[in-house]
Amino acid sequence: MNKPEIPDIIVSRLPVYLRALRHMQAQNQQTTSSQELGAVVGISAAQIRKDLSQFGEFGKQGTGYNIPFLIGKLREILQIENVWDVAVIGMGDMGHALARYQGFSDRGFRVAMVFDNDPEKIGTEVGNFVVKDMKNLVDTIRKADIKVAMVCVPATAAQQVATHLVEAGIKAILNYAPISLNVPSNVRVQYLDPSVGLQRMTYYLE
Amino acid sequence: MNKPEIPDIIVSRLPVYLRALRHMQAQNQQTTSSQELGAVVGISAAQIRKDLSQFGEFGKQGTGYNIPFLIGKLREILQIENVWDVAVIGMGDMGHALARYQGFSDRGFRVAMVFDNDPEKIGTEVGNFVVKDMKNLVDTIRKADIKVAMVCVPATAAQQVATHLVEAGIKAILNYAPISLNVPSNVRVQYLDPSVGLQRMTYYLE
Repeated sequence: MNKPEIPDIIVSRLPVYLRALRHMQAQNQQTTSSQELGAVVGISAAQIRKDLSQFGEFGKQGTGYNIPFLIGKLREILQIENVWDVAVIGMGDMGHALARYQGFSDRGFRVAMVFDNDPEKIGTEVGNFVVKDMKNLVDTIRKADIKVAMVCVPATAAQQVATHLVEAGIKAILNYAPISLNVPSNVRVQYLDPSVGLQRMTYYLE
Repeated sequence: MNKPEIPDIIVSRLPVYLRALRHMQAQNQQTTSSQELGAVVGISAAQIRKDLSQFGEFGKQGTGYNIPFLIGKLREILQIENVWDVAVIGMGDMGHALARYQGFSDRGFRVAMVFDNDPEKIGTEVGNFVVKDMKNLVDTIRKADIKVAMVCVPATAAQQVATHLVEAGIKAILNYAPISLNVPSNVRVQYLDPSVGLQRMTYYLE
């Protein structure tokens, strides 16, 4: 698929629309409107129509959006029609939570392997996984052709882990460590730092 | 403080700048430039200068930004000069991780209490906290005057919890449940949904 030049801010909203549409579908709803979707996700109807129109003509004047159809289109656009294998690095509390997380199912991802460098953790079981030794990270990930990783190591170790992940061929990193990572421009990083999420909101508090 | 009308997208970048500046400070660096900061956070120098100029004149032509000064200004703007007490709702894997998370320290937040509705969990210890009964959530949070909460309950329970939190006077919710929450317009919600974070990146993968 030849990518149209879409601003990242628009791409960032598509998973949110998808999540809301899946929720409607789970409640056996068949169609929705940009107004209704907007009310659910807190984004204006006009913005939603504009965002979706970047990718095609998905709704009909008067009848709105067919939910299963729009879900299919969004999954296609976001390239999650198939399941991506994901490596989780760092088996602290957060890594444990992610290794056992039920929320990936049917959303395009599956934890495939987990790593730590602590001899007391290597070889133990976490959820359905045996913790692998971080020193084999590059080879193991490369051999399995995994492209997506989640990093849950301490901030002090995160950059070194990221460098190894890039060497292993990882192209998308979800980073839970509270530090910005330096990676080549062809590798994407998203940050799930709870302090950053909270600080975005305290700006508005009175 | 009378809030200038700042687009939320700009506000969302300030915590990222702050995190990078704190990292520089920890390495005993005294000054930085918009170029250097931009390289660390992956945002253009021009964008950084434009973002910061919305709030005042923080840098000097030629010498750049004084790091401790800019950190102080950002903490003031984001209203994290003091520490916000935070309630964590849901003591599954993710709630456990957050109750024991070391990354809030010195970033404006402190977990103050944790809740669950499971009789087997209520009264047990998680990190430094005794798990409180969710049925007392509204009274307990209101009495403690807590304004910030993190929600880590299953998707099916999240809306009901959010409604109770609003009733308790919570004004900012960091939501880990994979579902959009309906709250009044004076309550902020941020989502830390790993599937959404991953889907934002798979759009770009080849």
